[in-house]
Amino acid sequence: MEPPTFTALLEPIGFISSCFTEKFGTPRQPGLAPSATARLSLIEPFNRSEMVRGLETFSHVWLQFVFHQAVGDGWKTTVRPPRLDGNERKGVFATRSPHRPNFLGLSAVKLDGIDCTDGVVLRLSGVDLLDGTPVIDIKPYLRYADCLEDGGGGWFSGDFNKLGVSFSDEAAGFCEAYEKTTGHRLSELIREVLQEDPRSAAQREKKSEFGMLLFDVNIRWRVAGSVCRVISCSRKRRKGSL
Amino acid sequence: MEPPTFTALLEPIGFISSCFTEKFGTPRQPGLAPSATARLSLIEPFNRSEMVRGLETFSHVWLQFVFHQAVGDGWKTTVRPPRLDGNERKGVFATRSPHRPNFLGLSAVKLDGIDCTDGVVLRLSGVDLLDGTPVIDIKPYLRYADCLEDGGGGWFSGDFNKLGVSFSDEAAGFCEAYEKTTGHRLSELIREVLQEDPRSAAQREKKSEFGMLLFDVNIRWRVAGSVCRVISCSRKRRKGSL
Repeated sequence: MEPPTFTALLEPIGFISSCFTEKFGTPRQPGLAPSATARLSLIEPFNRSEMVRGLETFSHVWLQFVFHQAVGDGWKTTVRPPRLDGNERKGVFATRSPHRPNFLGLSAVKLDGIDCTDGVVLRLSGVDLLDGTPVIDIKPYLRYADCLEDGGGGWFSGDFNKLGVSFSDEAAGFCEAYEKTTGHRLSELIREVLQEDPRSAAQREKKSEFGMLLFDVNIRWRVAGSVCRVISCSRKRRKGSL
Repeated sequence: MEPPTFTALLEPIGFISSCFTEKFGTPRQPGLAPSATARLSLIEPFNRSEMVRGLETFSHVWLQFVFHQAVGDGWKTTVRPPRLDGNERKGVFATRSPHRPNFLGLSAVKLDGIDCTDGVVLRLSGVDLLDGTPVIDIKPYLRYADCLEDGGGGWFSGDFNKLGVSFSDEAAGFCEAYEKTTGHRLSELIREVLQEDPRSAAQREKKSEFGMLLFDVNIRWRVAGSVCRVISCSRKRRKGSL
């Protein structure tokens, strides 16, 4: 018998603006960085306020989205999860890797509010979503169907020795000034991101100093043992500026 | 500024065979009918055993799928959830209705086992998936990211007065014989499906006797008050047979 066939064209319903302006440093799962905020702006014809009527009564929402920055690299049948120190291969369907067939992502994120004054904008936190992510569906988080108390097992429990995080005086001073002018809780965000150890297994062996971008801020940090030291923060130069 | 654009072609990775051979009676969420079993058969080139290596250690999996029987009917900006007796309209993104932009579904189901002797087949239970459903992704259920103890609120808590279910002698006899020949726990499945009241608000007002199909069995039942009585069960005649 011929197998059934089905193809469908996916249409984004909106796009994410988030603090994660590059892949490196973006949390591997939602909820790990509660200070990570984002906005989901719905686009035509999905940005009518009636389409989200009643959604504001839920504490969390599911976002189904496309790992748009993974599409170009394709997918492989197995991956080396960073939490296993890169020593073991797992089937791609046994992981949440972005490099997967159809490149679909799934995250339960906190819904902080909905603005319907100009189109529809969802205010979110605890996100693990790159800036520019195309979103293809929003669903309410239903505790009775989605929170499986007996859902367990797996090769990774979530237990993990977090890194300690400290700031140089210079970095701490920058964060304080940045928070005053932008309202973003930058130092707390840096702490939440770094304590999860964003490095790949290969990076852990090769380097000790790293840079990552959060919002428009270049952050330099160093790891020694289980402690992460933020050395400096600086505004990224805009493209085209001197 | 022009909004960003992104379209992608979805490719099914496999198809569902389930006891739910028609929409009416299919549970509205996963987990409501634990006896509802299904098989997910992966298709080329996604049916290599290495692609699910390690997945067997998880108790549950997420399936992302297409509501293929909803595509033809299109979607609306608001829907009348059956649990609100059809009296109230909610935004489509505030519901899990199949009639939604991109027609994507999401279910956490129990993973009973994986057979890799001939291709890859996942044995599942607690499903709310129609027979023939195209699946577009499998992800492990991660308790630490997906089970939100503080995830709450919403216009429906899952609390609901279940219907009582009783069987006529004839129906009980049929189920017993069917279970012996097929191994399917039919009477338990009928009980789990009917106690959730599969009727729409409109059906509740207009009719008192109903028919539904589970596997290849036509089931006739009647509702009086909060009790559901299974009158008869019979094998569906095959198309083309006399």
